[in-house]
Amino acid sequence: MEVGVVGAYSLKYELRSSKEVWDMIKEVVEGVLGKVDKGIGKDEIDLVIVSNFSDRFGGLTHTAPLVVSYLGLNSTKGFRVENACVSGGTALYIAWNFLRSGLAKNALIVGFEKMSYLPSSMEVNEVLMQAGHPEEVLVGSPFVSLYALIATAYMSRYGAREEDLALVAVKNHENGLRNPLAAMQKKISVEDVMKSPYVSWPLKLYDSSLITDGAAALIVSSEPRRYTDTPVMLRSIAMYHDHPGVSQREDLTALRAVRKAGEEAYRSAGITPKDVDVMEVHDAFTIAEIIIYEMLGLAERGRGVELVREGVTAFHGEIPVNPSGGLKSKGHPIGATGVGMVAEIYWQLRGEAGERQVPGAEVGLVENHGGTGATSVVAVFSR
Amino acid sequence: MEVGVVGAYSLKYELRSSKEVWDMIKEVVEGVLGKVDKGIGKDEIDLVIVSNFSDRFGGLTHTAPLVVSYLGLNSTKGFRVENACVSGGTALYIAWNFLRSGLAKNALIVGFEKMSYLPSSMEVNEVLMQAGHPEEVLVGSPFVSLYALIATAYMSRYGAREEDLALVAVKNHENGLRNPLAAMQKKISVEDVMKSPYVSWPLKLYDSSLITDGAAALIVSSEPRRYTDTPVMLRSIAMYHDHPGVSQREDLTALRAVRKAGEEAYRSAGITPKDVDVMEVHDAFTIAEIIIYEMLGLAERGRGVELVREGVTAFHGEIPVNPSGGLKSKGHPIGATGVGMVAEIYWQLRGEAGERQVPGAEVGLVENHGGTGATSVVAVFSR
Repeated sequence: MEVGVVGAYSLKYELRSSKEVWDMIKEVVEGVLGKVDKGIGKDEIDLVIVSNFSDRFGGLTHTAPLVVSYLGLNSTKGFRVENACVSGGTALYIAWNFLRSGLAKNALIVGFEKMSYLPSSMEVNEVLMQAGHPEEVLVGSPFVSLYALIATAYMSRYGAREEDLALVAVKNHENGLRNPLAAMQKKISVEDVMKSPYVSWPLKLYDSSLITDGAAALIVSSEPRRYTDTPVMLRSIAMYHDHPGVSQREDLTALRAVRKAGEEAYRSAGITPKDVDVMEVHDAFTIAEIIIYEMLGLAERGRGVELVREGVTAFHGEIPVNPSGGLKSKGHPIGATGVGMVAEIYWQLRGEAGERQVPGAEVGLVENHGGTGATSVVAVFSR
Repeated sequence: MEVGVVGAYSLKYELRSSKEVWDMIKEVVEGVLGKVDKGIGKDEIDLVIVSNFSDRFGGLTHTAPLVVSYLGLNSTKGFRVENACVSGGTALYIAWNFLRSGLAKNALIVGFEKMSYLPSSMEVNEVLMQAGHPEEVLVGSPFVSLYALIATAYMSRYGAREEDLALVAVKNHENGLRNPLAAMQKKISVEDVMKSPYVSWPLKLYDSSLITDGAAALIVSSEPRRYTDTPVMLRSIAMYHDHPGVSQREDLTALRAVRKAGEEAYRSAGITPKDVDVMEVHDAFTIAEIIIYEMLGLAERGRGVELVREGVTAFHGEIPVNPSGGLKSKGHPIGATGVGMVAEIYWQLRGEAGERQVPGAEVGLVENHGGTGATSVVAVFSR
């Protein structure tokens, strides 16, 4: 059974203080339905999966039947899934399983998060911390501190420097400049990153992804060529887990779930890392992107920093990573994030990515993870 | 492909002010793993689905990988699903689809809700209201008021009286007396119900289900006889939706999603309502149980009240409904509710329901719905 993406839509990620969350959802649902090349009827959607992290970010639950009702209340089935920052990747994973086994034909995936629903970044952080291990949360460790532990271990073992991490931020901000959907379209230098305030040493403000509102939607079909002559095929998708508590892990410098999901996704798609032309990966903090390079087989352990030092993963490099600007510049509205990553790869493989188009991209990969990597979903796509 | 329940476990539903939510989850996971007749290894669980309504009721998200890590971090996949009060039914629906199509073999379903996490019933109600239609929520309609509209329409059209609704509460409280897992084990009379304060006319305090904490777990397998000689087979399961806003519906006295899901579940199982020996249904408010009788074909439209007046659905009646005590007496810890309903039918069909055992029950049905019936899941089970 072939499964392909036949439509994608995303709002520009930005703080939308005046906008109701339900309006954001309706906008991406209408948007994606209007973007299918040969058209698709509302009544052809038989599965709705909503990706949303917290009801404290938007005040909505039981959101899938709202969308089903909006589509006209046919025999469409709907539910919400949540796996922290990888809710979007998880929605695609479940949709793929339903489509491949014939339980549904056309799935609409809607990701959203209205993080500005809460008035202060302190409160936002409290909600985000719910995605960690209860005992680490109990001692008050926000994610930036957990990633700081990972960064410290990595720097100590492999001799990486803060400036190396900064290069990831500089690259992704440069990419974001070309993306009209990115929340922060602002060029930054290594010096800017180094001068930005420490949030949790060695991670600084500019090592961190953005809190923002956002929504994105996809239509995924088991009859993709019925809806477009140029679908983006979902070649493989894999999900793996790691211990939610970083203190439970044997190796702080590895992300087991990412490595396992990557290995399975490559194997199932019958490709190697060298076959991938463009990647969107989960750069929640700069250190994450470096370690993801290594977990996904782009570099040996400890040598991920070389890729960014040498420009291998830059926009004009050998394997552009995060041409969208990544979570760092494009933004990270939790439930929308994984959905938006797939949308970016869809546009890249169809040659519709405008100024940020990676020339001739034929194979794309998405790596979306939750928490400090307790869950990772890796998906491989091709034209 | 056969799918059967091979283990069930539930905490007594009650307010657990001193208990951490993660402890509740660990307790039901250990509990259900220990309840499988022939034993099951942690490494045999390949899918974990967590059913939880709101992270404001427990402060946990990304809970599935916590359970996966607790099980030993094999190749088990996990995620949380949410569909308001039918999160548990939805978890079973997704598990069934994964198992039937061979994508997983043994699914662990964990439902929980810690409603006492919030200090006041006003705040609890605010969270519950998130499951309604955003525009009805905007004008401040809590679910009791929406169900009161439904009750008013029903009483006006069919001549039912408040005393008829009270009979549902009396029946379910009497049943709950026999259930050590029920939150409120207290016999009540029609007079007690009639004297209880109005929450939203015509619905009174004793017409309403209970806010409580709770957790329950199931193991569902596609090789059920490997784990027990007496599995409870999942014969069919169906999900349907209705408009989330009651103001959007053509007929206030019907629950379309329940009717559609019931029709499909009966058809797929090859049975009629008369074949069912015991039912657990979603009596969030007394009026709901009356209308569910009609939607599930136990009575004609407008004649559901007769079943409760005549004792047809009483414990010793022709078709006992809610022998557990229902949401009314057993309690309604949102994410646990649907999971606990299936647990009750599992025990009933295995003859393990103790004092509340329906003699010789061979076919059982669960009806679990969300909001005012925007989503309903109906499942049919047999020995």
